[in-house]
Amino acid sequence: MTHRRKRALNAMRPISFHPNFTKHADGSVLACCGDTKVLCNTSIAEGVPKFLREQNKGWLTAEYSMLPRATHTRTDRESTRGKQTGRTIEIQRLIGRSLRAAIDLYKLGDHTITIDCDVLQADGGTRTTAINGAMVSLTLAMQKMQYAKKLTTDPIRHLITACSIGVLNQQPYLDLDYYEDSHADVDCNIVLTEHGELIEIQGTAEGTPFPKQTLFDMVNIAEATQAQILEAMRACISPSMPDA
Amino acid sequence: MTHRRKRALNAMRPISFHPNFTKHADGSVLACCGDTKVLCNTSIAEGVPKFLREQNKGWLTAEYSMLPRATHTRTDRESTRGKQTGRTIEIQRLIGRSLRAAIDLYKLGDHTITIDCDVLQADGGTRTTAINGAMVSLTLAMQKMQYAKKLTTDPIRHLITACSIGVLNQQPYLDLDYYEDSHADVDCNIVLTEHGELIEIQGTAEGTPFPKQTLFDMVNIAEATQAQILEAMRACISPSMPDA
Amino acid sequence: MTHRRKRALNAMRPISFHPNFTKHADGSVLACCGDTKVLCNTSIAEGVPKFLREQNKGWLTAEYSMLPRATHTRTDRESTRGKQTGRTIEIQRLIGRSLRAAIDLYKLGDHTITIDCDVLQADGGTRTTAINGAMVSLTLAMQKMQYAKKLTTDPIRHLITACSIGVLNQQPYLDLDYYEDSHADVDCNIVLTEHGELIEIQGTAEGTPFPKQTLFDMVNIAEATQAQILEAMRACISPSMPDA
Amino acid sequence: MTHRRKRALNAMRPISFHPNFTKHADGSVLACCGDTKVLCNTSIAEGVPKFLREQNKGWLTAEYSMLPRATHTRTDRESTRGKQTGRTIEIQRLIGRSLRAAIDLYKLGDHTITIDCDVLQADGGTRTTAINGAMVSLTLAMQKMQYAKKLTTDPIRHLITACSIGVLNQQPYLDLDYYEDSHADVDCNIVLTEHGELIEIQGTAEGTPFPKQTLFDMVNIAEATQAQILEAMRACISPSMPDA
Amino acid sequence: MTHRRKRALNAMRPISFHPNFTKHADGSVLACCGDTKVLCNTSIAEGVPKFLREQNKGWLTAEYSMLPRATHTRTDRESTRGKQTGRTIEIQRLIGRSLRAAIDLYKLGDHTITIDCDVLQADGGTRTTAINGAMVSLTLAMQKMQYAKKLTTDPIRHLITACSIGVLNQQPYLDLDYYEDSHADVDCNIVLTEHGELIEIQGTAEGTPFPKQTLFDMVNIAEATQAQILEAMRACISPSMPDA
Amino acid sequence: MTHRRKRALNAMRPISFHPNFTKHADGSVLACCGDTKVLCNTSIAEGVPKFLREQNKGWLTAEYSMLPRATHTRTDRESTRGKQTGRTIEIQRLIGRSLRAAIDLYKLGDHTITIDCDVLQADGGTRTTAINGAMVSLTLAMQKMQYAKKLTTDPIRHLITACSIGVLNQQPYLDLDYYEDSHADVDCNIVLTEHGELIEIQGTAEGTPFPKQTLFDMVNIAEATQAQILEAMRACISPSMPDA
Repeated sequence: MTHRRKRALNAMRPISFHPNFTKHADGSVLACCGDTKVLCNTSIAEGVPKFLREQNKGWLTAEYSMLPRATHTRTDRESTRGKQTGRTIEIQRLIGRSLRAAIDLYKLGDHTITIDCDVLQADGGTRTTAINGAMVSLTLAMQKMQYAKKLTTDPIRHLITACSIGVLNQQPYLDLDYYEDSHADVDCNIVLTEHGELIEIQGTAEGTPFPKQTLFDMVNIAEATQAQILEAMRACISPSMPDA
Repeated sequence: MTHRRKRALNAMRPISFHPNFTKHADGSVLACCGDTKVLCNTSIAEGVPKFLREQNKGWLTAEYSMLPRATHTRTDRESTRGKQTGRTIEIQRLIGRSLRAAIDLYKLGDHTITIDCDVLQADGGTRTTAINGAMVSLTLAMQKMQYAKKLTTDPIRHLITACSIGVLNQQPYLDLDYYEDSHADVDCNIVLTEHGELIEIQGTAEGTPFPKQTLFDMVNIAEATQAQILEAMRACISPSMPDA
Repeated sequence: MTHRRKRALNAMRPISFHPNFTKHADGSVLACCGDTKVLCNTSIAEGVPKFLREQNKGWLTAEYSMLPRATHTRTDRESTRGKQTGRTIEIQRLIGRSLRAAIDLYKLGDHTITIDCDVLQADGGTRTTAINGAMVSLTLAMQKMQYAKKLTTDPIRHLITACSIGVLNQQPYLDLDYYEDSHADVDCNIVLTEHGELIEIQGTAEGTPFPKQTLFDMVNIAEATQAQILEAMRACISPSMPDA
Repeated sequence: MTHRRKRALNAMRPISFHPNFTKHADGSVLACCGDTKVLCNTSIAEGVPKFLREQNKGWLTAEYSMLPRATHTRTDRESTRGKQTGRTIEIQRLIGRSLRAAIDLYKLGDHTITIDCDVLQADGGTRTTAINGAMVSLTLAMQKMQYAKKLTTDPIRHLITACSIGVLNQQPYLDLDYYEDSHADVDCNIVLTEHGELIEIQGTAEGTPFPKQTLFDMVNIAEATQAQILEAMRACISPSMPDA
Repeated sequence: MTHRRKRALNAMRPISFHPNFTKHADGSVLACCGDTKVLCNTSIAEGVPKFLREQNKGWLTAEYSMLPRATHTRTDRESTRGKQTGRTIEIQRLIGRSLRAAIDLYKLGDHTITIDCDVLQADGGTRTTAINGAMVSLTLAMQKMQYAKKLTTDPIRHLITACSIGVLNQQPYLDLDYYEDSHADVDCNIVLTEHGELIEIQGTAEGTPFPKQTLFDMVNIAEATQAQILEAMRACISPSMPDA
Repeated sequence: MTHRRKRALNAMRPISFHPNFTKHADGSVLACCGDTKVLCNTSIAEGVPKFLREQNKGWLTAEYSMLPRATHTRTDRESTRGKQTGRTIEIQRLIGRSLRAAIDLYKLGDHTITIDCDVLQADGGTRTTAINGAMVSLTLAMQKMQYAKKLTTDPIRHLITACSIGVLNQQPYLDLDYYEDSHADVDCNIVLTEHGELIEIQGTAEGTPFPKQTLFDMVNIAEATQAQILEAMRACISPSMPDA
């Protein structure tokens, strides 16, 4: 492999969250993981979708998109093609499910939250970076609502963290960049609560099937790496919530 | 729970495969798992998609659909709505990825395989039943091609099996029916090679997050239940391939 | 013609109706005519479309689709192409019009009936087989509603039957299979009430125009063949309605 | 019925064809039947669709559309709704099939003809007026091609004529206007060759089923009324083709 | 340039408006400018779009389309392509904005006006001819509403006129036909109130950029040519409104 | 007006261009004008669209989009609605036309340039900021191609600049922010070459029509403000091209 990894196999790239990246959103964060940069904007609207009427609970949904030139070569814009790709739909369903697991929809009340995750620059791990950024963006928006007395209790149940792990040469690699990702035999995304419980796991053998021990190893690595992500998240969300 | 499960928590419903369910397809199987019935038709066409040209390998893709009244209440037809739902797209991508892991695309040569999985009746586990049925349907089609001397070697690398496992009341339930599925806290689909290695795992906490030990338990259950599925598969595919 | 017809020119292929083919629909029938197999599922919903509001009558509509591999070669799925073909739309409008003529919409009350006709296997005559199967499926659903006291009178006005007739070598052929259909000069579909009156006739000269006497002959053949279809229908619907 | 018909039940409204209504089309005719006005423009392009390649024959297709305010109340434009209605598709398939029966596609050679039938004003009978206008427009275009030596033989096999007949109060009415059409029990469209043979018949009982004798009566009326349509057609096409 | 312009550079082609071109619309005008012919039909509906509710004002919108063979070679129908082209959308937005500037939406009350501009034949200047025809069509519709006592005051604020001016060989050409338009370096459309004030100006350098003095010259030409358009408009609208 | 403008009526907000904002694009610039921020990424592909084949010239096109929460309230994503809005299409056509006027397509050779203008944050003037950013992004991409010897001559003909001017209280306001824009009577966008000649002008009376003198005044203001924009552009593009 001519691409030389400069960090340990179980080390993440630098991760950071930049709050208030844009000014209109209810919560706005630029989430960076290595060269991957995802803008996560939270919007809060009154009311809920029809299927939730009269259930006294709110809703949360996510949308994911890559700017056409977030990637090495330009990708056609989904709006001009008239529909989203299967990959986009799969990812934004993952983000939405994960974030709904982070929030108490009953405490949210009659509100619908939309979290837009737009990839400005891609270098592997866009879906996990989007989940992490969405978590921070959502927290900022909930803080703002509480500050504005639109919510009287905090609907956040716990922070969640996401990381990607792959298998190359039969060894687990944490947080693959684009080059590593395109050469990996296995691609796994793991979403955990801040207490280390599983929210979502998606593991795929792109090439060679893998033994269950490898799966267990990857889960353990995800668990071990979580502290670093939580630290970066907590550095971004307000001091009144140091333990999230 | 008023719905009483009549079998052990780690027991599957009866599973069966009915070959030649329709007459035109290159491989046609009706896959049944309890009351879930999925028609899996394999079609083989000459040539490969543009992105594979001059790579000397074939391609395999899958499509999944539910008949409008496969379910308790009627669902709008996707052709009249003008597009497939996110759920459909997510499932057919899973089926396609899984089956591509079962075949050596280089041995397939300049052919494109499409496996249509149409759910005639749904009662939980449609995606795993579709994967199992697609595996049988694909095998029958490959046998036919070898018999017709259109292929000189068998492109099947190994059989794959899929099962769904959920968590209710903090206990793993194998092979959930519709009622159980709609009450489960965790929903997990696991695809294995016949040798017990992982092809794909998708686990989602619909409600309560779950500890990693539960994940490991579910993988072990999937592994243990595999023999039953393989037996039903082998009963359907020809005697010349008893060990698949 | 190398394809040898094994029955008289005015004889139909075996026709049969299999009730309760799936378990969720309000009426479910697999209609078979030779090797043509169409699953006809009736769904009943509360309410009527906007254009019928406050008219004290119900509505009935039909949808028709072929599974991708119902045919000799695979046809692209309409949901992935984003729209139904002209042929599909033409056929489902014919089925809907015909079945609306079989029912008293005022007696149906504030309900909308949708009959889904999905062709599992095609060998000529799919649209007429769909109409016949829809008639049986609708009758079963209306019986179930009366049994459940959701309707107090029977909205069925009369049974309807459909058959296809073509012209090959200047002779009328009843009930063409795929091979005959693709070689016919004239293609005619006739829908009659059980009393022999016309509901719909669609005759098309694919190749050679035809004299009006041929049209009259085809109508007479349709009339003569009707008893056989009615007998199969009545064998399927419940004994409490022997004369339909 | 407050609407009083001012002509005999078997009499058509005045019919006329106005050639060269627009200047760019290869054949352009405004076809009028009573207050129904349809602009029929023929366009000829080099080449044929893919499914006809290397068959040494040409192709002919038709498109039908109503201007949004051709009708009593405005209808949404199909281009803004993103698709054609079922009615539009059904009608343009009828027009295309009928006109293909009027022409020898082998003599047409490597050309594709598109006939656009745009209804400027509607008052019943738009589809039959479109067929008649398309016949004249096509003839003018074929004359122009022969004059320009792009065709050496005349591909027109025979003129075709279309008329609509309905049943009101159990009596056949020829050529229904909008008011009559919306009150008719039966609606029938008949397309004949100039020699009186059938090209297409579509008869529908909108309300009451009808006896076969009524069908036969309608066919006879269509036959009898044909001379008047042919006369108007021949008055419009060039003197070098007086007997069509 | 082999195409010889037969009128002065600052002269328009003959312009005329033909009222009541179709019978159903609330206002119907065929607007002609040279060989360009646009049918402008005004429809009035009760109610307003959602974004205007409870503002006590009406709404006006326009739609523009070209018949497929309005042009030298056939253009695909937008309804079959499933969407309008960028050009169509740009033009109909211009028409709508311009006409809204001609009317007092508060006086219109709870009505929505749709003006359909369908180009029957194109030879340059279709958008300006559409604006002029829409102005006349709208005026006729407003007169009819006042006559029918559905409006008590005239919502027309002033007539508006539109003309196109281009630059060829560094000289301004008024009212370009298709040939001139396709050779022009600059293409400018100017919409004025009858009092000479600007409603809209759109000037584009297709090839060579142009000095601001040329822009000023074109505005002056538009102003000078306005009387001729107004005269033709006033000849078409009723004598009770001679000064518009 | 409660919103107090803090600069002179003919003063622009601070304008700046940040090169290399993302790493994959051939030219990448974040263009800022006040709080409006537009990411302008240039992509260069081999080959040209079909309509330009064998003309020995290249092509340039632009796409424009706003992130869903670039605005005060969230706007639906165009990819989920299945099509671009009329406003988007109108704007991206303007950007494309303007930039094509800045480049010699013959010198570009067999390449297609796509400039993606994605609005990250909107506060008025997004289309003019997009044009200015696209100009810088294009220049950087052309410099990179010349440096890489893929082009031997510079295809840039001249820089272009764009600014927006409105009329409030009958006075011209340069460079309106969102608040001013939503209260303006006239909205005008002017694109000039660096030599002060006009590329495009689009002026619209949203409310009150305006005299031609106001138009002339706005053009003069655009001309006067151009130096400031050019200075910011030149600060961003490389020192080897100080005079553009």
